[in-house]
Amino acid sequence: MTITPRIRGVYSAATTPLNADHSPDLGLFAAHCQRLLDEGCHGVALLGTTGEANSFSLVERQALLEGVVKAGIGPEKLMPGTGVAAIPETVALTRHALSLGVTRVVMLPPFYYKGVSDDGLFAAYARIIEAIGDDRLQVVLYHIPQVSGVALSLPLIGRLIAAFPDTAVGIKDSAGDFGNMEALLAAYPGFSVLAGADPLLLPLVKAGGAGCITATSNLVAASLRTVYDHAIDPAMADRVEAAQARINAYRSLSNTYVQIPTIKAMVGLKTGEPKWAEPRAPLMALNPADQADLAAKFAQLP
Amino acid sequence: MTITPRIRGVYSAATTPLNADHSPDLGLFAAHCQRLLDEGCHGVALLGTTGEANSFSLVERQALLEGVVKAGIGPEKLMPGTGVAAIPETVALTRHALSLGVTRVVMLPPFYYKGVSDDGLFAAYARIIEAIGDDRLQVVLYHIPQVSGVALSLPLIGRLIAAFPDTAVGIKDSAGDFGNMEALLAAYPGFSVLAGADPLLLPLVKAGGAGCITATSNLVAASLRTVYDHAIDPAMADRVEAAQARINAYRSLSNTYVQIPTIKAMVGLKTGEPKWAEPRAPLMALNPADQADLAAKFAQLP
Repeated sequence: MTITPRIRGVYSAATTPLNADHSPDLGLFAAHCQRLLDEGCHGVALLGTTGEANSFSLVERQALLEGVVKAGIGPEKLMPGTGVAAIPETVALTRHALSLGVTRVVMLPPFYYKGVSDDGLFAAYARIIEAIGDDRLQVVLYHIPQVSGVALSLPLIGRLIAAFPDTAVGIKDSAGDFGNMEALLAAYPGFSVLAGADPLLLPLVKAGGAGCITATSNLVAASLRTVYDHAIDPAMADRVEAAQARINAYRSLSNTYVQIPTIKAMVGLKTGEPKWAEPRAPLMALNPADQADLAAKFAQLP
Repeated sequence: MTITPRIRGVYSAATTPLNADHSPDLGLFAAHCQRLLDEGCHGVALLGTTGEANSFSLVERQALLEGVVKAGIGPEKLMPGTGVAAIPETVALTRHALSLGVTRVVMLPPFYYKGVSDDGLFAAYARIIEAIGDDRLQVVLYHIPQVSGVALSLPLIGRLIAAFPDTAVGIKDSAGDFGNMEALLAAYPGFSVLAGADPLLLPLVKAGGAGCITATSNLVAASLRTVYDHAIDPAMADRVEAAQARINAYRSLSNTYVQIPTIKAMVGLKTGEPKWAEPRAPLMALNPADQADLAAKFAQLP
């Protein structure tokens, strides 16, 4: 029996534009989110790692989410990151999302302490979910150990699914290890396994995965949608392969320099709005030479 | 010429007690801080890694600091941790401390992103210090890469000292590499180098270091004070060695299990208040067998 995952599709790990004073540009951000949907994304996973969420204050994060909802984007299309280092603040951010009708969130584990036990991570997620106490909530766990420093193990995920079957419904796996995604699919049928790395979308969908939450979607959402929609259609194989190759080319260029500032600079090149190029410290904008090099290579992309 | 470091002495990396609902116990915490001072600490570096600061919300952190000040402890004796992942919140926590007359803080770099450049870390600290804009502020940089995942390099520290000579006045070096502390002392005369690891207090003070901010001070503050006061007095060498040996014995036992919950459990054993044993998730209390084993070994300590 095939169990359909509850969260499926192409989600964009949306980047966040800044004003000259490094405050978030709420208007440009909402327009960017709308464009991502217009280009084919099923939803926008705003305020993730690519979105520099943890460089923003709780107040700024709430303003960004409210700005998008007020701009008219349906709450059912939004999946904000709400996991921070302190449990009460993860609870507060998630409750705030729910108050706006946003019922799906991507949730990092507490990420300050490293080497913590699965018992400790289970306790943290359990306390958060129980404190929120809202049956509408659907949580996508966030496994990105190369940034957060805190991995989510297969047994931990199984314990969370068993304890909260209607809440712990998926995972964003950004570790880039396809074997881990296959293990998740095999172990937990119906659990939404979403790739955090663009090159893995096609193999993951073919293997029964639920979709992706990726950075390159800021640039080539339509191609990701093509891959997602037609991955298992033999008649479309050539078009799908071409779309995945295009995605991979953008991804490869974005990794030439530090990825997040480069993605932002590429959105600036795509849209003609140079303010996109600026991240918030500790991330730094590309230097002028690298920016010029990037622009030349960007112009050659398919 | 010897330049006297501005921040010197034995500071306690105070642990934070919780109520049954895992909220911080403000009264017990203030009493603990007063006891640490009574036992010989020059000051209390509350809300650090041992204090589980990043597991508390901004509101809880502010309440803990206010509670200590309201309990009558002089703000000049307090050195709270105020560095979090988001610059505006580091600014807010530091301004709050200054509003209470607390002018010295221990400041982590933004710690979500890993592998960030020295330029990015410099920009982050510079933006924070400039946004606060208060000449009273004295910042102790916080180098604890094994937890934060973000190291502060020698050149970065030099750039911060050069740019903010009256603000970037010291470092808590918790990496446990004595060579790094020696390099700091040699490169930056007058910069306060404070050991984050108890066993290094004696060698560091002998080498011209400014003191310590350590976890074992929650248990053996008087011994740390003995080492600090008499480290370079040949007539006191035996007493100093004995004090350092006592410190090391407590430290060694605290590292038998996960350190922070074990330190808390040991404070509980020392004071007879069992509620100390509970940390906030993702840290977990020792299981009953380990707690019993710890109690037996604790009773044997010098």
